[in-house]
Amino acid sequence: MATIFALLTQNVSAHIVMVDSDQEKLKGEVMDLQHASSFLYNGNASIEACTDYSKTKDSSVCVIAAGVRQKVGEDRRSLLQKNVTALKTIVPKLVEHSPRTIIIIASNPVDVLTYVTWRLSGLEKNHIIGSGTNLDSGRFRYLLSQKLTITPTSCHAYIIGEHGDSCVPVWSTVNIAGVRLRDINDNIGQDCDDENWKDIHTQVVQSAYEIVKLKGYTSWAIGLSVSQIVNAILNNTTSVHAVTTCVQGHHGITDEVFLSLPCVLGRSGVMDIIRQPLTDLETKLFRKSATIMAEHQAQIKF
Amino acid sequence: MATIFALLTQNVSAHIVMVDSDQEKLKGEVMDLQHASSFLYNGNASIEACTDYSKTKDSSVCVIAAGVRQKVGEDRRSLLQKNVTALKTIVPKLVEHSPRTIIIIASNPVDVLTYVTWRLSGLEKNHIIGSGTNLDSGRFRYLLSQKLTITPTSCHAYIIGEHGDSCVPVWSTVNIAGVRLRDINDNIGQDCDDENWKDIHTQVVQSAYEIVKLKGYTSWAIGLSVSQIVNAILNNTTSVHAVTTCVQGHHGITDEVFLSLPCVLGRSGVMDIIRQPLTDLETKLFRKSATIMAEHQAQIKF
Amino acid sequence: MATIFALLTQNVSAHIVMVDSDQEKLKGEVMDLQHASSFLYNGNASIEACTDYSKTKDSSVCVIAAGVRQKVGEDRRSLLQKNVTALKTIVPKLVEHSPRTIIIIASNPVDVLTYVTWRLSGLEKNHIIGSGTNLDSGRFRYLLSQKLTITPTSCHAYIIGEHGDSCVPVWSTVNIAGVRLRDINDNIGQDCDDENWKDIHTQVVQSAYEIVKLKGYTSWAIGLSVSQIVNAILNNTTSVHAVTTCVQGHHGITDEVFLSLPCVLGRSGVMDIIRQPLTDLETKLFRKSATIMAEHQAQIKF
Amino acid sequence: MATIFALLTQNVSAHIVMVDSDQEKLKGEVMDLQHASSFLYNGNASIEACTDYSKTKDSSVCVIAAGVRQKVGEDRRSLLQKNVTALKTIVPKLVEHSPRTIIIIASNPVDVLTYVTWRLSGLEKNHIIGSGTNLDSGRFRYLLSQKLTITPTSCHAYIIGEHGDSCVPVWSTVNIAGVRLRDINDNIGQDCDDENWKDIHTQVVQSAYEIVKLKGYTSWAIGLSVSQIVNAILNNTTSVHAVTTCVQGHHGITDEVFLSLPCVLGRSGVMDIIRQPLTDLETKLFRKSATIMAEHQAQIKF
Repeated sequence: MATIFALLTQNVSAHIVMVDSDQEKLKGEVMDLQHASSFLYNGNASIEACTDYSKTKDSSVCVIAAGVRQKVGEDRRSLLQKNVTALKTIVPKLVEHSPRTIIIIASNPVDVLTYVTWRLSGLEKNHIIGSGTNLDSGRFRYLLSQKLTITPTSCHAYIIGEHGDSCVPVWSTVNIAGVRLRDINDNIGQDCDDENWKDIHTQVVQSAYEIVKLKGYTSWAIGLSVSQIVNAILNNTTSVHAVTTCVQGHHGITDEVFLSLPCVLGRSGVMDIIRQPLTDLETKLFRKSATIMAEHQAQIKF
Repeated sequence: MATIFALLTQNVSAHIVMVDSDQEKLKGEVMDLQHASSFLYNGNASIEACTDYSKTKDSSVCVIAAGVRQKVGEDRRSLLQKNVTALKTIVPKLVEHSPRTIIIIASNPVDVLTYVTWRLSGLEKNHIIGSGTNLDSGRFRYLLSQKLTITPTSCHAYIIGEHGDSCVPVWSTVNIAGVRLRDINDNIGQDCDDENWKDIHTQVVQSAYEIVKLKGYTSWAIGLSVSQIVNAILNNTTSVHAVTTCVQGHHGITDEVFLSLPCVLGRSGVMDIIRQPLTDLETKLFRKSATIMAEHQAQIKF
Repeated sequence: MATIFALLTQNVSAHIVMVDSDQEKLKGEVMDLQHASSFLYNGNASIEACTDYSKTKDSSVCVIAAGVRQKVGEDRRSLLQKNVTALKTIVPKLVEHSPRTIIIIASNPVDVLTYVTWRLSGLEKNHIIGSGTNLDSGRFRYLLSQKLTITPTSCHAYIIGEHGDSCVPVWSTVNIAGVRLRDINDNIGQDCDDENWKDIHTQVVQSAYEIVKLKGYTSWAIGLSVSQIVNAILNNTTSVHAVTTCVQGHHGITDEVFLSLPCVLGRSGVMDIIRQPLTDLETKLFRKSATIMAEHQAQIKF
Repeated sequence: MATIFALLTQNVSAHIVMVDSDQEKLKGEVMDLQHASSFLYNGNASIEACTDYSKTKDSSVCVIAAGVRQKVGEDRRSLLQKNVTALKTIVPKLVEHSPRTIIIIASNPVDVLTYVTWRLSGLEKNHIIGSGTNLDSGRFRYLLSQKLTITPTSCHAYIIGEHGDSCVPVWSTVNIAGVRLRDINDNIGQDCDDENWKDIHTQVVQSAYEIVKLKGYTSWAIGLSVSQIVNAILNNTTSVHAVTTCVQGHHGITDEVFLSLPCVLGRSGVMDIIRQPLTDLETKLFRKSATIMAEHQAQIKF
């Protein structure tokens, strides 16, 4: 719902179809949004819902946010098999009605589920995108911005790898106007750093758990993160975002594994993957994520 | 939270302070919004929270959404005394920190609570605004737009009076490009109307109950409605919206009662009240609302 | 150029092709706009130009602003035959490359040229739209807003008929929140009106001449007016705007004549024409416009 | 005028006062903009003009675009003394009416005139900002984006130094998602580079001359560039932009000279200057610019 509200209020899309199995809740949400029409930029926004996917026909983008919600303290990966089962129902129906769609997965554990969606969809790899570490990167930038007193969008920084505990902050390329912070502080992000920048990464990883503990779920930031990805595709922005894609061939990964890397997003989904020069430590951590993911992927029962 | 998310995504305000007694939830919501900074129009938006009102100092606008939530089937007015008690704590603290603020009340029953807020605040009447029937008018316009295939913002229509069961649709002035529908259909909105336009008003009144029943609460439309009112004040738009204000002297009302009428909103709150020429039936219904409200107001224990 | 700049800055379209016979100027303007990419909402906006129409292929909307510029004191209609000649070259080429386009004419005299474009295009009437009195109505609302201290978008008022000296202000339907000013002032807009509202119409008519005299041409308001019409079509807003369309069958007009009336605009161009109930005087003035236009149309050499 | 139109259409400011000595043109422009009110986001935008500065009282930001226009082939610096004379009239009056304003200079030669304005204003250095190489950087990014098929806002690149022939492209820090192009192509931007990236800088420098030659002046891109700077200040964005500021103490400059460097802009103007690590060549070129500027500054007659 936060994603849909962001899409409407930020004027990213005025044609939305919601699908859910809970017909009651679905009807309530649709009515609540429709009643807001006269307060939106395009008062004639088309907001519809269905339970049988029929109205999703010829969608340019499909966002999958379905799945069991992460519980307090629960590891994202423990949700896996339950959500695989859900995707087996959802993905084929979306593709049946929109064979040329781009699919964005926001459900957790997002990386494995992006792989699963790709397998279930029969679509090309670049047409399946996981929301991945776009949100983690947003959190990273926000925390950097607070320490530097510079707006997050001028704090250029990426978190790659898993959207989860093993995510990798690419400290080596964090920069402001091209000035790499590591050139100023050699040990940035490491244990031996006197300025304790590492704490920022710790906060990013703890964030999801903490917010879930405090308010029961995360919503606003992930909604806006997905809205940004949808905008990149619908408006063919060719802007760079860290999202889940197949990383085979990058940083020495040989498995067909799905993790986040900075990608150029546009009309055809992932149009390019930026090849960041990682440090040895960063590469090692990324590969570790990949190994874990490969194992997870192998365990899935299709 | 829907109001705050609307204010941020529609770029109405980039300086927000949230106050709540539930410190845990408050912290979770603030973190979730702050993490969205890099996805907002102004990435340097200042989003803060406190429980003691200290950070609200010198606010241009204060929105009160506090109060016990309306339960399934519950009449808005039954919430009254509980919420009066809450306002006795809230209002004086807001005014203490921002003696020149405009206060918007979104809590229900909104009309009586607007009166209560005015009494508790010591501020001028035009500085206290209830979200009132701005939402009902939005619902009215949406339903009209569906029947007419014309966008809601070109369906000029107001619901006045109580935000609740006794709200009054001003059928006599409903118009498209200055064409009054009543000039085409004499009986519009009445029981004897063959085209059954009255059903639209019935749906408006039932909406809140139905959405509460279906999803547990209303959020998106009321959030955007309040965001629109805040925008009118912060940006001094001088646009016309149906909001709760003191209607003494209008349509024969002699009591100092608070109900919705179309108001010109701007920097100083309610800058003017539009004097719509009502039909006898509309006047009768509006006065009935006023009588009910006067009774409710009289029963309040300050 | 003002239209294009408005389309880009208001994020109405990010795919623009400019056609002009002056290759030098065209190249300069394209470069100047392209260099602004990083300052626009969509930095990947596609801004191109050509002299042979080839790049206009499959345009959703074509705006024609070509034509000899109105000189100081020059009557819009004196430009006619020169501009007809220009349209004979332009229109067939646009339609050849975009057979399902909507064409918007902004060149003057706009009403006759809308008729000419329709004749030359072979397209359906509702696919050809003249910018007409959308601008005059905007000027009318601005001047009303200044007198009433209410924002122009809450001053509901239309000017219909010719975009020019014989344009007709529909005083009978001017309203704020459904309150017709004529119900307050019987003589509004007439010579015998003590409050001299008629002066507002005089200013509207004089505006174009005065601005041309003062700065040499009009640009900003007409650019934004056209941008609003393009937005209505591209985003299928179904909003109501006074634009030039075929008015046969309205207000007693039997000729196939093109003038402005309030129209519902959307994906398929003019989706509906609002039938305003005019006073006898307003009808008379509108018919007079129609007679003049019919004569002008008859004189055109195709 | 392009700046003002950008400020209004991008909703950066709704309170604008224009000052010009040409009363006729001024009146024409104001009328043309006011007539556009109903097409703007805030229809109640206040657009005024005066010749005596009285209405500029308490402006948050003053933009100076006055000055003799650059002629075809004319060097920006040749305009200098004429424009200094103009500033002697303008600056003291602006400061008199708005002693706490931020002044943005867009007139050419912008760097020297920023120095002149600072001297004439009596304000602190960080309150005087030249539009500088923000536009050059925008052009640089656009041209990079075309070569890389990545949106300009994801092509992080700065041009520093003089807004003019001696401007310095900081090739060493050009990066996409933290990947420095120089790490891929050692010779990037140099004469010996096989991929001829240097040509992009040549195009940036030639751009202004070419557009002036083709259309007579530059407008759209510089208008949007200034609008971006104004937005940064009014909304306290703390975003980084290359603008003209006092560069004493940077890159070995000891003179009190004004040139562009990447600056953090916010409520108080230039809040910080980013210390980019330049290559020896880049430093040498920047110092050369500084020497030229120091000479120009020395020649000015106050």
